[in-house]
Amino acid sequence: MRAAVMRQGQLVVDEIADPEPGAGQVLVRTLACGICGSDLHTLDHADEMVEMASEATGAAPAGMPAPKVMDPSRDVVMGHEFCGEVVALGDNTGNCQVGDVVVSIPVTFDPTGLHAIGYSNDYPGGYGELMVLSDPLALKVPNGLDPRSAALTEPMAVGMHAVNGSRSAPGTAALVLGCGPVGLATIAALGLKGVEPIVAADFSPRRRELASSLGAHATVDPREEEPIDTWRRLDGRKPLVLYEAVGVPGLIDTALRAAPRQSQIVVVGVCMQPDVIRPMRGVVKELNVQFAFGYDPVEFADTLRLIAEGTIDVAPLITGHVDIDGVPEAFRALASPDEHAKILVEPV
Amino acid sequence: MRAAVMRQGQLVVDEIADPEPGAGQVLVRTLACGICGSDLHTLDHADEMVEMASEATGAAPAGMPAPKVMDPSRDVVMGHEFCGEVVALGDNTGNCQVGDVVVSIPVTFDPTGLHAIGYSNDYPGGYGELMVLSDPLALKVPNGLDPRSAALTEPMAVGMHAVNGSRSAPGTAALVLGCGPVGLATIAALGLKGVEPIVAADFSPRRRELASSLGAHATVDPREEEPIDTWRRLDGRKPLVLYEAVGVPGLIDTALRAAPRQSQIVVVGVCMQPDVIRPMRGVVKELNVQFAFGYDPVEFADTLRLIAEGTIDVAPLITGHVDIDGVPEAFRALASPDEHAKILVEPV
Repeated sequence: MRAAVMRQGQLVVDEIADPEPGAGQVLVRTLACGICGSDLHTLDHADEMVEMASEATGAAPAGMPAPKVMDPSRDVVMGHEFCGEVVALGDNTGNCQVGDVVVSIPVTFDPTGLHAIGYSNDYPGGYGELMVLSDPLALKVPNGLDPRSAALTEPMAVGMHAVNGSRSAPGTAALVLGCGPVGLATIAALGLKGVEPIVAADFSPRRRELASSLGAHATVDPREEEPIDTWRRLDGRKPLVLYEAVGVPGLIDTALRAAPRQSQIVVVGVCMQPDVIRPMRGVVKELNVQFAFGYDPVEFADTLRLIAEGTIDVAPLITGHVDIDGVPEAFRALASPDEHAKILVEPV
Repeated sequence: MRAAVMRQGQLVVDEIADPEPGAGQVLVRTLACGICGSDLHTLDHADEMVEMASEATGAAPAGMPAPKVMDPSRDVVMGHEFCGEVVALGDNTGNCQVGDVVVSIPVTFDPTGLHAIGYSNDYPGGYGELMVLSDPLALKVPNGLDPRSAALTEPMAVGMHAVNGSRSAPGTAALVLGCGPVGLATIAALGLKGVEPIVAADFSPRRRELASSLGAHATVDPREEEPIDTWRRLDGRKPLVLYEAVGVPGLIDTALRAAPRQSQIVVVGVCMQPDVIRPMRGVVKELNVQFAFGYDPVEFADTLRLIAEGTIDVAPLITGHVDIDGVPEAFRALASPDEHAKILVEPV
């Protein structure tokens, strides 16, 4: 099959072997797959990503399966925000039928253990034409939902999970730093939770517009006003949760500095590099920092339903489309946040 | 009066003007005052301390009094862990009588605002012979409790507050990194909360002994075993809260690295310098970091009662006594943790 392959730290388009479904697995044809900021990070910092994943694996509770960690010196086909059509069934399947349009949390299991689809040497992700999914984990996309919107289930679930694991609730306010896909997903989830006001900060006018369309009550360009001051001006009274959704060095300390006393900072941006903080900022204000990652299967399924029902309108987030040959160029384009939120890879 | 004065970043013993009680205030003669690690930090990093305090003040909720921030270029008499005897009453007092032995949270207020006793240019702390306290905030030391033990109310309350603000509860386990006074206070509070096991880590054999006497179920020398492995060996199943009670750069990242998935790290050590963390450690394990600071007046009063009733035995923590002339030397001695936990200044 044709795939955009991470090979020795570079993204190259190549023909590679088709994956084959084992027992309890299905083969799908990729219909749409979002390009995730984590994949951009991974391309630049694969070794650190692997080191951290290995640490987390070592810390897994006894009895829990440890996901197999990829070897970045071997080929990896990334892409974990996908929607596909089932084209073949392995043995012992019963959930999916050929022709079903499905999404899935990006993990699969086989007799060798648990694998992260898109961060695996064995299970290619959606930057390739074909993927192998676990039959029982696949969710049928409700009738009529565009596969391109369904592909956004994964990033939107990240926002829902971050909000679910936070102190955000009716009667609280939120400040979201960064309106890339993760920040936008967070804003959508905050709106559904009844949080008000939601203040969203980003340098990009286009991303601020998207923030408004997803439910932000106010947006701010940090060059024009300190985002925390926008919140103070609008509200400044309710308990505040700040979401760090940028994921570059320095942003956690920026949040620590801005946060009011006894507030919470949710780190949902993924900063792979070492970062400098001033712990005293946290101490004197008794801040709480919650790191958020991923989602659970129920949150994933809920998110699909909310998108399918039109409660979350993800269509405006899709700002570009490429085929597999266009993936390397799309990675470059995503460095320019004014232009894009989510670029979808559509192999066909 | 005679006092150990922080003057231009140095600790010098000098005769300074006696403080005078205003309306609603009382004058006390210092009986005992503990030397706090924060004072050692402040002597070395006064400007950073002031910068952080100013930031926190700026972030105070509207309507709350902002504590006045000290000017480190002017004299400051530190010492906020004190017990004193009332020797004179200002106008409009009614709580204290001359002769009462009292402790107090180290704040006082006057028409100019709120002041932190021991971190103020106007209100000297317990490294001087006399202090001015707020009459209504003073708590009488219950009959018979040694003023030296009563002076430990303040640091022990810090441990209680850190534990109260954490996820520690019966059915959870704790790992305390650092068995200085803050770590020991934390261990005592964890024991009262019914946490088991409590694993305590310190390089110093003497401090590990103190940890055991205050209720640690196991102690570990980090040179001999990774403290997290000691916990795994003993328990490894219950939800874990890690307490970072060392307060030097690198320790938060050490805790992030050691912490199991979805556990909490409580930062109760005060690191005034910038510090480097790897945010990904927090992200992939969805850690929660709670910064803890101070206590509320109820926790302070509860701690005094627990000490007076013998529920917390603080006597073993007192490892040295000096008069005011001995304060500068005591600051130097506290750099050597094998020798000391808490040194008390006893002016008389």
